[in-house]
Amino acid sequence: MNPDIARERENATFDVNKLTNILDGGPEKTTRRREIESLVFSDPDFKEDDPNFLSRSERYDQAVRKSVQMILKLREYGIADPEEIQHYKSCVHPDRPEPLDLHLGMFLPTLLNQATPEQMDRFFMPAWNLEIIGTYAQTEMGHGTHLRGLETTATYDPSTQEFVLNSPTVSSIKWWPGGLGKTSNYAIVLAQLYSLGNCHGLHAFIVQIRDINTHKPLPGIVVGDIGPKFGFHEVDNGFLKLENVRIPRENMLMKYSKVAPDGSYVKPPSTKLTYGTMVFIRSMIVGSSAVALAKACTIAIRYSAVRHQSEIRAGEPEPQILDYQTQQYKLFPLLAMAYAFKFVGQYMKQTYLRISEDINHGNFSELPELHALSAGLKAFTTWEANSAIEVCRMSCGGHGYSRSSALPDIYVDFTPTCTYEGENTVMMLQTARYLVKSYRQAKAGQRLSGIVSYLNEAQSRGVQPQPVAARPTVVDVNDLSSLVEVYKLRAAILVDLAAKSIQQELQRRRSQEDAWNNSAIDLVRASDAHCHYVVVKLFADKLGEVGDTAIHSVLSALALLYALHGITKNSGDFLQAGLLSVPQVMQSSLRIKELLSQLRRNAVALVDAFDIHDKKLNSVLGRYDGNVYEHMFEWARRSPLNATEVHESFHKYLKPLRSNL
Amino acid sequence: MNPDIARERENATFDVNKLTNILDGGPEKTTRRREIESLVFSDPDFKEDDPNFLSRSERYDQAVRKSVQMILKLREYGIADPEEIQHYKSCVHPDRPEPLDLHLGMFLPTLLNQATPEQMDRFFMPAWNLEIIGTYAQTEMGHGTHLRGLETTATYDPSTQEFVLNSPTVSSIKWWPGGLGKTSNYAIVLAQLYSLGNCHGLHAFIVQIRDINTHKPLPGIVVGDIGPKFGFHEVDNGFLKLENVRIPRENMLMKYSKVAPDGSYVKPPSTKLTYGTMVFIRSMIVGSSAVALAKACTIAIRYSAVRHQSEIRAGEPEPQILDYQTQQYKLFPLLAMAYAFKFVGQYMKQTYLRISEDINHGNFSELPELHALSAGLKAFTTWEANSAIEVCRMSCGGHGYSRSSALPDIYVDFTPTCTYEGENTVMMLQTARYLVKSYRQAKAGQRLSGIVSYLNEAQSRGVQPQPVAARPTVVDVNDLSSLVEVYKLRAAILVDLAAKSIQQELQRRRSQEDAWNNSAIDLVRASDAHCHYVVVKLFADKLGEVGDTAIHSVLSALALLYALHGITKNSGDFLQAGLLSVPQVMQSSLRIKELLSQLRRNAVALVDAFDIHDKKLNSVLGRYDGNVYEHMFEWARRSPLNATEVHESFHKYLKPLRSNL
Repeated sequence: MNPDIARERENATFDVNKLTNILDGGPEKTTRRREIESLVFSDPDFKEDDPNFLSRSERYDQAVRKSVQMILKLREYGIADPEEIQHYKSCVHPDRPEPLDLHLGMFLPTLLNQATPEQMDRFFMPAWNLEIIGTYAQTEMGHGTHLRGLETTATYDPSTQEFVLNSPTVSSIKWWPGGLGKTSNYAIVLAQLYSLGNCHGLHAFIVQIRDINTHKPLPGIVVGDIGPKFGFHEVDNGFLKLENVRIPRENMLMKYSKVAPDGSYVKPPSTKLTYGTMVFIRSMIVGSSAVALAKACTIAIRYSAVRHQSEIRAGEPEPQILDYQTQQYKLFPLLAMAYAFKFVGQYMKQTYLRISEDINHGNFSELPELHALSAGLKAFTTWEANSAIEVCRMSCGGHGYSRSSALPDIYVDFTPTCTYEGENTVMMLQTARYLVKSYRQAKAGQRLSGIVSYLNEAQSRGVQPQPVAARPTVVDVNDLSSLVEVYKLRAAILVDLAAKSIQQELQRRRSQEDAWNNSAIDLVRASDAHCHYVVVKLFADKLGEVGDTAIHSVLSALALLYALHGITKNSGDFLQAGLLSVPQVMQSSLRIKELLSQLRRNAVALVDAFDIHDKKLNSVLGRYDGNVYEHMFEWARRSPLNATEVHESFHKYLKPLRSNL
Repeated sequence: MNPDIARERENATFDVNKLTNILDGGPEKTTRRREIESLVFSDPDFKEDDPNFLSRSERYDQAVRKSVQMILKLREYGIADPEEIQHYKSCVHPDRPEPLDLHLGMFLPTLLNQATPEQMDRFFMPAWNLEIIGTYAQTEMGHGTHLRGLETTATYDPSTQEFVLNSPTVSSIKWWPGGLGKTSNYAIVLAQLYSLGNCHGLHAFIVQIRDINTHKPLPGIVVGDIGPKFGFHEVDNGFLKLENVRIPRENMLMKYSKVAPDGSYVKPPSTKLTYGTMVFIRSMIVGSSAVALAKACTIAIRYSAVRHQSEIRAGEPEPQILDYQTQQYKLFPLLAMAYAFKFVGQYMKQTYLRISEDINHGNFSELPELHALSAGLKAFTTWEANSAIEVCRMSCGGHGYSRSSALPDIYVDFTPTCTYEGENTVMMLQTARYLVKSYRQAKAGQRLSGIVSYLNEAQSRGVQPQPVAARPTVVDVNDLSSLVEVYKLRAAILVDLAAKSIQQELQRRRSQEDAWNNSAIDLVRASDAHCHYVVVKLFADKLGEVGDTAIHSVLSALALLYALHGITKNSGDFLQAGLLSVPQVMQSSLRIKELLSQLRRNAVALVDAFDIHDKKLNSVLGRYDGNVYEHMFEWARRSPLNATEVHESFHKYLKPLRSNL
């Protein structure tokens, strides 16, 4: 153990294991998670070559091998709880996406949700036993988030009782689905359904794309890998071009909508029925923002405790980087953010489970709020974590650029969350739509409930930007509940501002749509403020559940830092709205400095509490034992370019050059 | 040509070629640059395999091959002007770093600057003719920006008249130098000089590391590649461990400092003599921020003109992405930033040339200001461009993640500028040191000149944060020169705030060093505001040189957008200091929206004016002709994973799995 990092741990003021239990949701959850981790990490079948040293084809190959092992072992051990499967998988492929993700996470669930009993009989068991390996082919080259724009067609031919699938344009080629390129032999294809000359919109079709035995593409199917990407090296994201591919009528997923043999179409009873999966995935992404950021913080903070550099006082030994105020200011607000997002992730999961219970009983009343919340928080947390990971990486000096640090891979595998499952700006605008709608309802005298209920108060109190002198100075920048209040008022004011912008545009005789587009900047800003409020509020709420005094104290400091840092970063909003005075903003800056010093001694313990196994972190900089440099040297020596002492290019180019000059 | 992008070009209000000339520094420069580009791009010897489809070893091999060709051709064509060499190189390796970078950019120049005539005789011509290939080995595993902390030792042995070089610890192993891993047979090694029991600090030594003929490492030399990184795939950044390596006394670079045969040491006449290269490189990085950002903007804006998505008005065709206010708000301020940084880059280059003339005549008076300016602007522009490139990438939807877009590579090859040649936070603090020193001089009644002269005025006018009511409302948010003024006042106030924080810390009986560290957040903030002011000012200054009315008009809109966007993003600073009122900040937001609409029709023309050759851009999304999707499909089909229809992993793992389930 590196003595610096050992000393950090001795100095911590709280019981790390107890905080880990809070993050896991209870001591028994921690125990079970660790059992699963040890199952995987002690299993020789999951031994892997360092992916950094492999070609993409080799990485894909290794990932398929491990996924296959994983499926065998999960069944052998009888692990069936979704959370436990998730833990197991996140150790087998340490937080990396893998080729069977869409088969397990989209193909099977979609069958469960949308297949008829007859279809379940035909497809589910073969898929469960991986004779059928499927993917979910929705996104096209020219269309992502805007589903109505998808161009793939499925035209019903009553004469043969078949659908004929086509990719009518280059931009309609299915593009991006994971596992489509090389792994899958089936795909659920989303296509515009045409029957008897009418278009009935997007529907899902089960299409076989490769031969079960030879794995060769079937006639009319042009399929392959879309090429190398930023991250996702193990995944064969693919393309699929359909050229008059005929499938039996029975291959349309018909649990809700139907096409009869004669071509007549039956609408689904509710459009909300296929809505849930999307909301679920977005809710889960909030949690994965926390996971990725927690990893980046663990690496950056541990390495900052080990790394000595430069001098604060002349002549004295080089201090730990963590003693520099600038380094604390870079990292501790992000550590606070990671905790905030952990708790928001827990909340989203609980809320999803609660509301999906209601939905199963036919009660859809809370779905719109959850939809709006999951869209906005997905965008808010992924954007914030995305920038934060890069700050962590760059806080490690040059070594943050080495793949041995793991930071480049954490970034490239995380950043797509800003785009997939709903592009973030579009998500923010969806939340804004809900906020503006709620605002108008409140204005019309309707009583709002749930998380937007503050729009009632704002309405009745007539919250308006106004000079701070005119507002009772209730804000105490040392008091978290007081800060929750100002975040709430900021959100209310920015929703009001956005709604008024729309109003002004309409008064200039713009159409509703143009008024909306011309207010989009304000709408995104309002959504962002709303999400920020929700995060601060949920962090504060969580503190109420923490009984342990020492942990309560350190989490309170983090929550306060998170809230105050957000205030100084957005001080214009608070000043502009007259919610804070200039002295209060300056006081916030000073308080932040105090909190940085205060958190200094617990920083390493706070990342230790995330309890990320070394094999999962897979970072020489973030090792638990702090023995960074020896392992970095050892890692570098294994680099493929060092397989030979002299690279062939010397003999091919460099040496012959001499005689030519 | 894609009809959308053709229409954009028809609608432009100015002559693109004339703007290109301004960016190049004159029509003759444009002509010559294009000549050089065509020399390279029409040359079959520079044909390359798509690096995205190669292994790292293959990429390195291809880069060495092209570098060797480049050296032959530059001599064949007699291209010797540094700027022209730079153009040529940036086409051969499209803005990618390459294995000979340090030989050409550091090893040869260091010989020229620091070698004695005798050393020039021995080393220069062999190095010029690439018999000797050298690198510059400064950074160690445990030490980067803080040079005094470097641990490598060179101990003089008078009995044999040799230096004995050692890497005494793991953290002292040389780490990161480009070309060190596989390419170089020599290195200039920076080491602590010990002679007759005294340490004389860091000096440079010429060390042979590999055999000239076999290229095998020499005894005592442990050398290799440091492994894969975020970017820089073509470069063999290396490590070097020295184990009692003996070199003759004559291999210490002795133009300035000397060690006599008996071991006595002669100090250099001035410590500023080795200072210039560093300042030069930092100044040039400002320009490369502009280059990288211009590429990213070109790709994002062209693709946003071609890409149709979603709907503004129900039932109408999908609009170009560029018509969305949110997309304009993402991209146009970055386009303005790219122009701003272009002009700042031009200024830094001119200033460097002017001041190095002075230095050659023994006049060092302006060096401290240039040093402070280059440090701060290097940090400011690289940080800003770094985030901006990612915003551009994410504005392209999913395809921004594909390597075919070139955006991932622009980012990973650019982001190291935030760390190398001086870590950015350290750079900001260096600039702050200069600002605080100047502030104190002004306070002591000294008259400052140069770019910090505003600290005089601030002193005499007693600029202080104060309510806006107390300040004459001189600011016109539609007037650029008025905005330059508020940026200046903001910088002055933040320098004042930082200096006062130090003062307060000292009053609390803290040491100078602790007072500095405890004010570091404020110091970085002050530097940032200073740099921001400089950028806005230089952009405004540049407008004065532009004669063409149409171009003047569009550049004015860009400059105003840049300034106003900076104000709304940092509105807290301006409100807090009482420099702007709340209505003025709100007016700024409205004005930004107007500028976005106004710039919309010229957006494509403005990126066209960067005149980045398709082969240099190397992006399917950013193609000049806008024919994106066809080429993306064609590119994907060439991906190595598509070389076979069925990946071997199917037969190895997936098919056998069936019988096991």
